[in-house]
Amino acid sequence: MKRFPARQGVPGFRFGATAAGIKKPGVRDLGLILCDTPCTAAGVFTRNRVKAAPVLVARQRLRAGTARALLANSGNANACTGARGRQDALATCRALAAALHIPARLTLPCSTGVIGVPLPVARIEAALPALINSVAPTGISDFADAILTTDTTRKIVAVQDTIGGRTVKLCGIAKGSGMIMPDMATMLAFFVTDAALTPQAAGNLLTAHTAQTFNRISVDGDMSTNDSAILLAGGTGPDCSRPGSAAGGMFESLLQAVMSELARMIVRDGEGATKLITVSVIGARSDREARNAAAQVGNSCLVKTAFFGEDFNWGRIMAALGSSGARFSADRVELRFNRVTAVRQGQGVPQNYPRLRKIMKDAEIELAIDLQAGSGRGQCLTCDLSYDYVRINAEYTS
Amino acid sequence: MKRFPARQGVPGFRFGATAAGIKKPGVRDLGLILCDTPCTAAGVFTRNRVKAAPVLVARQRLRAGTARALLANSGNANACTGARGRQDALATCRALAAALHIPARLTLPCSTGVIGVPLPVARIEAALPALINSVAPTGISDFADAILTTDTTRKIVAVQDTIGGRTVKLCGIAKGSGMIMPDMATMLAFFVTDAALTPQAAGNLLTAHTAQTFNRISVDGDMSTNDSAILLAGGTGPDCSRPGSAAGGMFESLLQAVMSELARMIVRDGEGATKLITVSVIGARSDREARNAAAQVGNSCLVKTAFFGEDFNWGRIMAALGSSGARFSADRVELRFNRVTAVRQGQGVPQNYPRLRKIMKDAEIELAIDLQAGSGRGQCLTCDLSYDYVRINAEYTS
Repeated sequence: MKRFPARQGVPGFRFGATAAGIKKPGVRDLGLILCDTPCTAAGVFTRNRVKAAPVLVARQRLRAGTARALLANSGNANACTGARGRQDALATCRALAAALHIPARLTLPCSTGVIGVPLPVARIEAALPALINSVAPTGISDFADAILTTDTTRKIVAVQDTIGGRTVKLCGIAKGSGMIMPDMATMLAFFVTDAALTPQAAGNLLTAHTAQTFNRISVDGDMSTNDSAILLAGGTGPDCSRPGSAAGGMFESLLQAVMSELARMIVRDGEGATKLITVSVIGARSDREARNAAAQVGNSCLVKTAFFGEDFNWGRIMAALGSSGARFSADRVELRFNRVTAVRQGQGVPQNYPRLRKIMKDAEIELAIDLQAGSGRGQCLTCDLSYDYVRINAEYTS
Repeated sequence: MKRFPARQGVPGFRFGATAAGIKKPGVRDLGLILCDTPCTAAGVFTRNRVKAAPVLVARQRLRAGTARALLANSGNANACTGARGRQDALATCRALAAALHIPARLTLPCSTGVIGVPLPVARIEAALPALINSVAPTGISDFADAILTTDTTRKIVAVQDTIGGRTVKLCGIAKGSGMIMPDMATMLAFFVTDAALTPQAAGNLLTAHTAQTFNRISVDGDMSTNDSAILLAGGTGPDCSRPGSAAGGMFESLLQAVMSELARMIVRDGEGATKLITVSVIGARSDREARNAAAQVGNSCLVKTAFFGEDFNWGRIMAALGSSGARFSADRVELRFNRVTAVRQGQGVPQNYPRLRKIMKDAEIELAIDLQAGSGRGQCLTCDLSYDYVRINAEYTS
């Protein structure tokens, strides 16, 4: 497996972006992924009971397992917009399909941004000629920019590998960065590959690795109405559908690497984040208790503000563990920050405090927790809670 | 029922406070409630699995239902301090009991402050003479000051009523203000009354009204290791033990009023809070789903920062409701801020937006949510999430 520059593109796909005026004038806010031929398509969506219109439309269309085009906009979530929202999502897809001379059922809508405001359909339709005109195999970066909201950096990971003498490419493009919590994020993530996959294999891989990556990250504990992860497989490369096969295993490794890295990029670019924190729990009574304990720590406002203050406030971590529902004895717990022990048998280790003070200044911190109550393991990727998180979210207008 | 000035005191009780040097020098950090005779005592404690030493000691002693003295300190939680923490809690109680010539088993310890640092027992013992010397019937305010941590105001509610020509007094004293979440708070709350109550009646009343008041508030979703609510009933007043009786009903009204008001005071003084927000959910499939939905909204960082930004960002509220587990249809939901409709049938009501913008500047906001899915009701009291919350919690040293 090795990285490749995203502007080299993925055979069979073209990418476009334009400024449709959904956000501020002149800012890219509309993106298009176009497949040269109908490709295999699978998706994973938010489990929030309140689902945005494009989520409902895309989910339904993906039952057929095939797509040609994906139309994504930022600046407007088209969520909580009722029957009109659904009509608007369908209308933009229909206009795109007409312009591309493809069936509307092969177009997928994705939206992110403000909830509860009608989608500006006329602006989107007016921007379609420019959008279609912009498509190129090299356009991944422009597309990645068009889907950002409060993100400060574009998020692209492109990897390739060789199987039986043939190269397989996989490129992942994502946006975060607020409303992130275990169980998907306000997150759009798109994966394009030239591998050949059946819809079922694509869906299974996406679901399995979402559970291990995007569902283990937290910025603020909120769950979005619009979370969507969609995998498009062009099929000109080798067949990677069989889970046990060499090709299947290789593709799974590529997908795992891309999703893990995008998840880290999303948390590192969490709203206002200054630190990336991995919370690893071992020794729980079950994997589920370990995951819940990690998530409780990773979502605790008190723990997150302590990290922002560069304070190894392990008492707040103990309190979060104790309220997670995990069964353990407080006087057996061990805590380590970047492998330096802060707590042994439930109590502080003062001789390590000077070293811990220095570690807290690191940009990446691994918090390892051993509950010493069993063999369950779980992890959560989180970030600190800063003034900027408050500023960004107090100022972001409804 | 009417209020009375707390400095008039409650017959049978004296209150003291002193600066023991647990916090900064000269700041009151040690308080004492002294009953003239052994009184009825009952308590409710944190459900966090990690319980502070004083919680374990007080809970055990309250099984007997009787107490004479309550020793409370701020600045040190005596939590995560292992076997030594328990010995320290017992030692301070023993020293107090010796100085007062009362049995140690009638003394109750309570601590709040930093976790994981040994209790400075020598300082506390050295301060006991001054503490005991300070006790007076008029000392409630001084005691209330001694238990504060990041609170900005002392919290006292004193009410009285007349039954059969005899006056009953009840005074509640509390401290907040971070680590507050439904299911108790980092909260110490003490109730002293001259009513006569059996231990069982005192315990039942405290448990029932804790569920309706302190367990329905949220500042940051964190649950403390030290939460304690203790009711001391002197017994010189009328017997209020029988639930159905006139005296029983009257006392219950007093306790309900004091606990509700203290809960509001704690949230209003939540760390960095600028607004008090009542989240009321009706129309849920069950009371439980309504409570969970209210708590999910009240604990959402995105909702709380929107309130701080004075933004009626109802989309974030819809997203929080949708992730609460409550069963409802998004297109039936109604939302009102201070009785002005923001959302009807799941969609915004733009003609009300100018009025809503003004309402968001209010210091108290009632957010009423009708899920239109049943008859379940639930409530949560919360506050906004501000720069000051981050400042307070990033700077509070471990």
